[in-house]
Amino acid sequence: MIKAILFDISGVLHVDNAPVTGAIEAVQLARDEQKVVRFVTNTSRHTSTDMLQSLLRMGFDLSMDEVLTAPGAVRLVLQQRHLRPYCLVHEQLRPEFADLDQTSPNAVVIADAAEGFNYENMNRAFQLIMEGAPLLGVGLNRYFRQNDQLQLDAGPFIAALEYACDVEAEILGKPASAFFQTAVTSTGFAAEEVLMVGDDAFADVEGALAAGLRACLVQTGKYTPGDEEKIRHPGAWLCRSVVEAVHRVVNPSDYYSNK
Amino acid sequence: MIKAILFDISGVLHVDNAPVTGAIEAVQLARDEQKVVRFVTNTSRHTSTDMLQSLLRMGFDLSMDEVLTAPGAVRLVLQQRHLRPYCLVHEQLRPEFADLDQTSPNAVVIADAAEGFNYENMNRAFQLIMEGAPLLGVGLNRYFRQNDQLQLDAGPFIAALEYACDVEAEILGKPASAFFQTAVTSTGFAAEEVLMVGDDAFADVEGALAAGLRACLVQTGKYTPGDEEKIRHPGAWLCRSVVEAVHRVVNPSDYYSNK
Repeated sequence: MIKAILFDISGVLHVDNAPVTGAIEAVQLARDEQKVVRFVTNTSRHTSTDMLQSLLRMGFDLSMDEVLTAPGAVRLVLQQRHLRPYCLVHEQLRPEFADLDQTSPNAVVIADAAEGFNYENMNRAFQLIMEGAPLLGVGLNRYFRQNDQLQLDAGPFIAALEYACDVEAEILGKPASAFFQTAVTSTGFAAEEVLMVGDDAFADVEGALAAGLRACLVQTGKYTPGDEEKIRHPGAWLCRSVVEAVHRVVNPSDYYSNK
Repeated sequence: MIKAILFDISGVLHVDNAPVTGAIEAVQLARDEQKVVRFVTNTSRHTSTDMLQSLLRMGFDLSMDEVLTAPGAVRLVLQQRHLRPYCLVHEQLRPEFADLDQTSPNAVVIADAAEGFNYENMNRAFQLIMEGAPLLGVGLNRYFRQNDQLQLDAGPFIAALEYACDVEAEILGKPASAFFQTAVTSTGFAAEEVLMVGDDAFADVEGALAAGLRACLVQTGKYTPGDEEKIRHPGAWLCRSVVEAVHRVVNPSDYYSNK
């Protein structure tokens, strides 16, 4: 019995700037059926505040304390360890780290920097890591879909620096188990009572299953036919969209009785 | 008994634009002692012709047919397979591929593109590979030293695309065994009679040992103390520079009798 749902945001609740058909009602249905809902994202082109506001503008009903972002997790770790970050992040994400000391950096933070991923910035990050700075990443997401094109996310650039420096990045967003565990704890339920709904077979589905959650891959956003075959853990659901995912949570007998 | 020597060029024979002290004489000594010499490089900021001319200007004695470059190996494969490459390479390397058809690309070639490694170009390469284009790389070199700073080489950007697309690149330069084998064949000797001299523990030393050659790591160029501990195959030599490497080939008893 699923008691809480973690929704990935981009590609699941909305694509580009439009809500996925029926997504607003699906989130509302989950609430009406007493499911705890959380919004968990590695998206790092916007601050948590910007993301909340854009979802509210699209018509979703949610509050700030229901949103968990990977950049937020990174910020917390930087503060806890008193690290001074070199932030290779998107211009629009800079406010998230603006009040941290960034002089003489002794840590490297990689998020989806988009055009910020140029040779000069990558070299700067590389040189700092070679001097001993830890490499912190929002997530290992490979790509996302925007304006009907696949675009590189932060993961590949983190992989580049890991390879260059022969180090392993600390991933603080999905698919890190610690990130899912924080989200699960916030719901008050056990991991196996929580369903992650995402469009990324690796970061969302594999990550959640590895952390002991249930997981559903939706065929919207970055989904490409065959992605489900890349999932190595058993038990993932495959749904057409978030609408079907929520219906399956609410009416499980419709899905199990015929199979 | 070593009968042929493969010299890596940048970081071994010269650093920035100056020959390593004694390197010109060391190459000459090898020739005087009837050793066959070859110059093998993954360097991909210059065409083979440019590279030859700059070594001649520095005072080295060599001819074009003694030079084997990774971009040359890539060019050969593109021609053999009738591929139309998207070349993410340095401006100065473009002439190497200028006479190949590059319209509607169906292959991706990654060399050390330096500032060419921007987000737009990386996305273009990514999208082509996702459509099925093979990923061809000059080498997996992680970094090199220039103007006393470590700089990212092509390897990390290849690793980024491999991770993004869940594919494996075909590496056509060092450390690919096929590349070393081509060099060995050109000498007329067996692999175990050929010594590779390089400053890259992975691409030069590990690669050569894996291909059955002998190998020597020199402490010039990109060498950083401790690099020798990363070599997993046994039997590598560690020399202060190419001068010591050639002396050890020519006077092996000086090195073995005291040990």
